Amino acid sequence: MRAAPAPDEIRRRNLAVLLRHVHRDGPLSRAVLAERMGLNRSTILALTTDLVAAGLVSEQLPGQTGRAGRPSLVVRPESERVYVLALDVSADRLVAGLVGLGGTVLGRAEAPRGDGAFDPEQVAGALTEMARGLMASVAPGAECVGVGVAFCGMVRESDAVVRYGPNIGWTDVPFGELLSERLDLGVRVAVGNNANLGALAERERGVAAGVPDLLYLHGDIGIGGGIIMGGNLLGGQGGYSGEVGHMIVNPGGRACACGSRGCLEAEAGELALIAAAGRTDPPGAAVVDAIVEAAAHGDVAARDALHQVGDWLGYGVANLVNIFNPAMVVFGGVLRGIYLASAAQVRSRLATDGLRAVRDGVRLRTSALAGDATLIGAAELAFTPLLDDPLSLRPSG
Amino acid sequence: MRAAPAPDEIRRRNLAVLLRHVHRDGPLSRAVLAERMGLNRSTILALTTDLVAAGLVSEQLPGQTGRAGRPSLVVRPESERVYVLALDVSADRLVAGLVGLGGTVLGRAEAPRGDGAFDPEQVAGALTEMARGLMASVAPGAECVGVGVAFCGMVRESDAVVRYGPNIGWTDVPFGELLSERLDLGVRVAVGNNANLGALAERERGVAAGVPDLLYLHGDIGIGGGIIMGGNLLGGQGGYSGEVGHMIVNPGGRACACGSRGCLEAEAGELALIAAAGRTDPPGAAVVDAIVEAAAHGDVAARDALHQVGDWLGYGVANLVNIFNPAMVVFGGVLRGIYLASAAQVRSRLATDGLRAVRDGVRLRTSALAGDATLIGAAELAFTPLLDDPLSLRPSG
Repeated sequence: MRAAPAPDEIRRRNLAVLLRHVHRDGPLSRAVLAERMGLNRSTILALTTDLVAAGLVSEQLPGQTGRAGRPSLVVRPESERVYVLALDVSADRLVAGLVGLGGTVLGRAEAPRGDGAFDPEQVAGALTEMARGLMASVAPGAECVGVGVAFCGMVRESDAVVRYGPNIGWTDVPFGELLSERLDLGVRVAVGNNANLGALAERERGVAAGVPDLLYLHGDIGIGGGIIMGGNLLGGQGGYSGEVGHMIVNPGGRACACGSRGCLEAEAGELALIAAAGRTDPPGAAVVDAIVEAAAHGDVAARDALHQVGDWLGYGVANLVNIFNPAMVVFGGVLRGIYLASAAQVRSRLATDGLRAVRDGVRLRTSALAGDATLIGAAELAFTPLLDDPLSLRPSG
Repeated sequence: MRAAPAPDEIRRRNLAVLLRHVHRDGPLSRAVLAERMGLNRSTILALTTDLVAAGLVSEQLPGQTGRAGRPSLVVRPESERVYVLALDVSADRLVAGLVGLGGTVLGRAEAPRGDGAFDPEQVAGALTEMARGLMASVAPGAECVGVGVAFCGMVRESDAVVRYGPNIGWTDVPFGELLSERLDLGVRVAVGNNANLGALAERERGVAAGVPDLLYLHGDIGIGGGIIMGGNLLGGQGGYSGEVGHMIVNPGGRACACGSRGCLEAEAGELALIAAAGRTDPPGAAVVDAIVEAAAHGDVAARDALHQVGDWLGYGVANLVNIFNPAMVVFGGVLRGIYLASAAQVRSRLATDGLRAVRDGVRLRTSALAGDATLIGAAELAFTPLLDDPLSLRPSG
């Protein structure tokens, strides 16, 4: 236990808090910032002056307010000038995006995975090409301040090494380093678990805004979990918390890519749904959408498959609700469609197996950022060092 | 997001941090406190002067140090003068204890539950009798600053209401209020979940000292979980996080008191063990000990029962390790004996079903506070308001 912070640390923290407000909520008047932060206007003025000098925000007069007196200047994030590169790697597809301070998506590209595209070098190469294409069209003088990558597996964030990605076949791949060399941007490349990043994105900019206790369940071939409790993302000892896809819900059940049997992702993921529906399509969002649509049009095999998968998903949700007592469970990635088509099964399991005191308080929701929750989360990861210490970015313009 | 704290808040926080150091670790010199807290000695002097005036600590010269120069005074908690009443309510037994500041157990009483002792009024009456017996022998001038209760179920801490205790048959019982009236001590009666409190106790004073990511699994008739991640106890929306006993590990399995089937506590708790061993004894620590001892002496039925229960416990542990990536799992209550007698099964399941990156880093341990983890945790709960704001206790001596 350390003592409370000293004054210079307090100033740095206040700069960070101010920039986070503007980054998350967009243009805000000095008056609103003063009220939110519990500081007087002269302190706010000193803080914004520093951030303007660093090129992170600009100030301008607000539009006509109709009120007498001197209007409070509006502080606006420099979205076109300060941006990050966000990348999303899953077993289905690759996505790249440029995201400005304040969360504005400046550009976006997506590619389905080609055959053989699971090789780390090839993935890094493909992402680099996509990034270069996007960066060719940014405004002159704009600065890329970081790279964030969402990865569909277990990541050691400290050195950006992928520890384990069962559905993409990677073990101990130094993916951050590899990408850093290829991209050659001279900025930090941070890699995080995609579901963790999706949880942060939904909390910052999505359906879970302001929700302190939240489970985000992300489906692609696997199922990952991002868990925010008391406002903090759970990390665990190595930062690998949230591997809810490998909670065994059906002992001795379907084989999982992890080597075990009956894991939630083996029973309620894309592959289970495809098999239950009797399809032979390759996995991906397209086949899940096709099955959901077929069920909506009365296809019995598709409907039964969704019911079966939804029942296992319900076991998983009930267990997690009992374990965490969250205020909200958010379904993202392909689980969005699966949940919508099997909500009755999921809710029925929760009603049967969830304890009353916890199930009554929980809201089940689908991702508001839809397919881009993990990408937006990767952008937030890339912005983190700047948001933690705004003056660490020297003025460059 | 609020701004960083103001100076007067800082001083109050520093007082709290200092008292916590002395409460947790016992007598410490001013020099050690200055180093640990990153403050200079004159600030430490000012803080200890306030705490001495409030009757919370005393200062004295240390023993012979053999070093030249003026020795640093030792700051010691007033354990005999400032104490709390700690109570532990489980389906098996009732325990009461007096615990002094600094964690010294000043007195302890235990009673097995009698027939009909599940009625809240009777439980409150029995605990009050036990408490009065203990308090009759405290030092003159000693002050009881709070009451903490560990309860074997879901508790709404804000108003000390037991929401649900499936194994003791309580729903929405205002137990804190009831006890407060019976005890009539004029101090706050705080009630918490027993496993949560056990987790805090093991982290503060037990096997998990200094471990930031920790699962404490407490067994009596039920199985409860107390989960500490990143140093913080998980609460969830209503404070009910950690109901790991109602994670379904065996869909359609043994009936659980919660109304569901195949819950971890139904498959790996006392009742499952007793049934598997073919016994007819009433549940409690005694029969678990008897089965463990019989197995150690070669009783095949007892050994098979422990293997079966240990296998289900292993499923639960593997799931929780995958979900949380803890540094340590601590088995407390009757799970202590069950785990020790079935560690091979638990470890085998973890090896099969735990993901490598998380299972390699986790230590499985038994409670160091043994039967008293939950009681010690209740004492910590009772001390919390004082430790958060030491000067809230006016000097009374």
